[in-house]
Amino acid sequence: MECDILVVGAGIMGLSTAYHLKKKDPSKNIVVIDKYAGPGQGNSAKSEGGFRNMFTSSTNYLLADTSIDAFFHMQEKMGYELKLEDIGYMWLFSEDQYKEIEPAIDHMREEGVELTVYNQEQLGEMIPALMTDFSDDEEIELLGLKNVDYGVFGKKCGSLDADALVRAYEAEYIKLGGKVQYNTEATKLHVQPEMELGIPGEPFVWQKKVITGVDTNKGEIKAETTVIACGVWASTLLDPVGLDSYMRPKKRQLFAFKDPKVEPIMRTTGLNKEGALPLTILPTAGILLKSELTEGSIWLGCADWIPRKFELEEDPQAEEDYYTNNIYHALVMYFPDFEDVRPMNSWAGQYAINSFDESPVIYKEEGLLYVGAGSGSGIMKGDALGRIASALYYGEEDAELYGGRKFRVADLGVHHRNIEPEKFVI
Amino acid sequence: MECDILVVGAGIMGLSTAYHLKKKDPSKNIVVIDKYAGPGQGNSAKSEGGFRNMFTSSTNYLLADTSIDAFFHMQEKMGYELKLEDIGYMWLFSEDQYKEIEPAIDHMREEGVELTVYNQEQLGEMIPALMTDFSDDEEIELLGLKNVDYGVFGKKCGSLDADALVRAYEAEYIKLGGKVQYNTEATKLHVQPEMELGIPGEPFVWQKKVITGVDTNKGEIKAETTVIACGVWASTLLDPVGLDSYMRPKKRQLFAFKDPKVEPIMRTTGLNKEGALPLTILPTAGILLKSELTEGSIWLGCADWIPRKFELEEDPQAEEDYYTNNIYHALVMYFPDFEDVRPMNSWAGQYAINSFDESPVIYKEEGLLYVGAGSGSGIMKGDALGRIASALYYGEEDAELYGGRKFRVADLGVHHRNIEPEKFVI
Repeated sequence: MECDILVVGAGIMGLSTAYHLKKKDPSKNIVVIDKYAGPGQGNSAKSEGGFRNMFTSSTNYLLADTSIDAFFHMQEKMGYELKLEDIGYMWLFSEDQYKEIEPAIDHMREEGVELTVYNQEQLGEMIPALMTDFSDDEEIELLGLKNVDYGVFGKKCGSLDADALVRAYEAEYIKLGGKVQYNTEATKLHVQPEMELGIPGEPFVWQKKVITGVDTNKGEIKAETTVIACGVWASTLLDPVGLDSYMRPKKRQLFAFKDPKVEPIMRTTGLNKEGALPLTILPTAGILLKSELTEGSIWLGCADWIPRKFELEEDPQAEEDYYTNNIYHALVMYFPDFEDVRPMNSWAGQYAINSFDESPVIYKEEGLLYVGAGSGSGIMKGDALGRIASALYYGEEDAELYGGRKFRVADLGVHHRNIEPEKFVI
Repeated sequence: MECDILVVGAGIMGLSTAYHLKKKDPSKNIVVIDKYAGPGQGNSAKSEGGFRNMFTSSTNYLLADTSIDAFFHMQEKMGYELKLEDIGYMWLFSEDQYKEIEPAIDHMREEGVELTVYNQEQLGEMIPALMTDFSDDEEIELLGLKNVDYGVFGKKCGSLDADALVRAYEAEYIKLGGKVQYNTEATKLHVQPEMELGIPGEPFVWQKKVITGVDTNKGEIKAETTVIACGVWASTLLDPVGLDSYMRPKKRQLFAFKDPKVEPIMRTTGLNKEGALPLTILPTAGILLKSELTEGSIWLGCADWIPRKFELEEDPQAEEDYYTNNIYHALVMYFPDFEDVRPMNSWAGQYAINSFDESPVIYKEEGLLYVGAGSGSGIMKGDALGRIASALYYGEEDAELYGGRKFRVADLGVHHRNIEPEKFVI
């Protein structure tokens, strides 16, 4: 098989990139392949499905803010049911944490992020199920749990259906004539000399090389450009040819709860029109809760860092003990309604973390284009990342993001990278 | 065993760091361990042993320039025979390459790098054995080899004995009372909660963690601070606890030639007092030659990039075919005296490449300090890197480099990193 552009990976990045590439020039013969049987089956559909424009780096803000607009457009004008719920994002801090982050919050306000800061008393009224003050409890002090002193509430934030989003991009891409081929696993990148001499041993070190496609379990695919957009699996293709994916895979687990006992947790006042618990991050250990309104459940995740290993796992699983004998100890102090409640469901996915600046990477080599290192927020930036990857392919200096704002393509690259460090990382 | 500071790795970075840590506070109980039987046996002693202060990033220039001064001081005032030969560094460019690099060369001059630019005619006179112009040769044009149009010659550059350098740092460190233990391989980092509760399952996600030492093949070593300075092996310790080494290992091979036929190549005029071939980089494929004056030989390396894989190899070997059926084709065009000459010796080591900005990384986590990602120029920056790692340990904002120049420690870190991209990479 031969094509103009081969996109490896039918997750959010691959399909958004394929769509924007095809939209710009429908005459391009574009093929998306994925080793799974359908779109988003790698890590996209395992996502917690949160979105927020509340980032301290201007780049991340712009990527997410415009992508969120694009998603609402897709839902409201194009008829896709993405289950977008703008219930907000509540980032809880202790006094010390807040003082450290305060300049970044001011910076976000200047950038245009709509946010409100609440104090402990206000938070207690708005989220009645939340315990905010442990200062009189010696047992809890011993655990080292942090008080809830402040909450930074982002308005243009909430929940979406990642699976539906990926399928929407796939549908739009196919409408334009794009091809998708599932159950097709790329196993090896082809590297060839730009000018072949026909001498054994090519490519030689002194020859200019170009990526010319991939081997797959269904045979070779030749492509003028190969787009690597397969998330945590990118390194399995890039490492063997000595190109860097600038990311390491790390497992993240999610637990879902549907129990009358935890229903009070979901009820809030004054934060959103649904009166629902926004996506809420506790001040300890990056524990994240999300109301899943359509199924009436709470999803729970945790941004564990050290000593959670970097390792590519083919089929990562949630560990039951990780909830019952780990997160639970802290969680039940903040939300006592969790007492003795067990998850009804759990699953795990992998973050592709660029821990240098916690931001995505998009670069080009001869015959190859890489879009990856989503660092846990690739889905909510998915529209912008596809546009930027497409702009890089077409040699444009600036990408036009949804709504018309411009983005300098090289800012997400390697050699002229220009990203402020991101302080709001989960 | 217990100590204040455990340094994992007795290569240049580990021993320089240990020396500067101990020098600052001789009361510290410091232990250096290495899995090999002596210092520098990982990749330090496999190095090509070049040094240069000719870097386009101000940071890299400062790190190398002060380290070179320190090395000369060690040789001239402290009695170490480091075989320092300041024969210079000649970076050869085609017209196109030169035009691209010209602004960076101007920048280097402004920074204070002593360099001279020579044109093709001058180069032909100074390095008589070098072919500079292939424009009339169709066969060579077919190979895609680039003309030698310009040479950028750095003066404060040359050759050193990396093995001797590592041993000098070891000797100075031991003189101060520092301990070294060889044949001791760190196998696992210990992560413990800062405040232990004695509950099964610790450390929990909600606990503050600290690195407390390592397991080794000779038992556990407890340390208040563990310094990871083991080059390409760093990821075997850091990945399992989810910390990033910000580097990928890549094999680099060296070939040594001692043959009367290649002696003319080593003779030059007007470049250095020895009348010897400086370290010379050809304009194609990053082929590097170095006169090894003490043994009267030429060393040859090649900075192969795509498709040389990223992979940690325990004992990388040079591939004979890599010289005879690869580099040779191009090499013999530039230096016809190589015709039919075979290497008398060859070996291989691994670069720990940070391909984001081609510069080292030094950061601290609770109980851990990482110094690594030398990116192929860690040895020539070795003194400065040890000083900066030591300054980070002692909580100093600025490190004082050899000669008194200051360096902002956070510039080599992750979260407030401040490095200009390096354009002179081999």
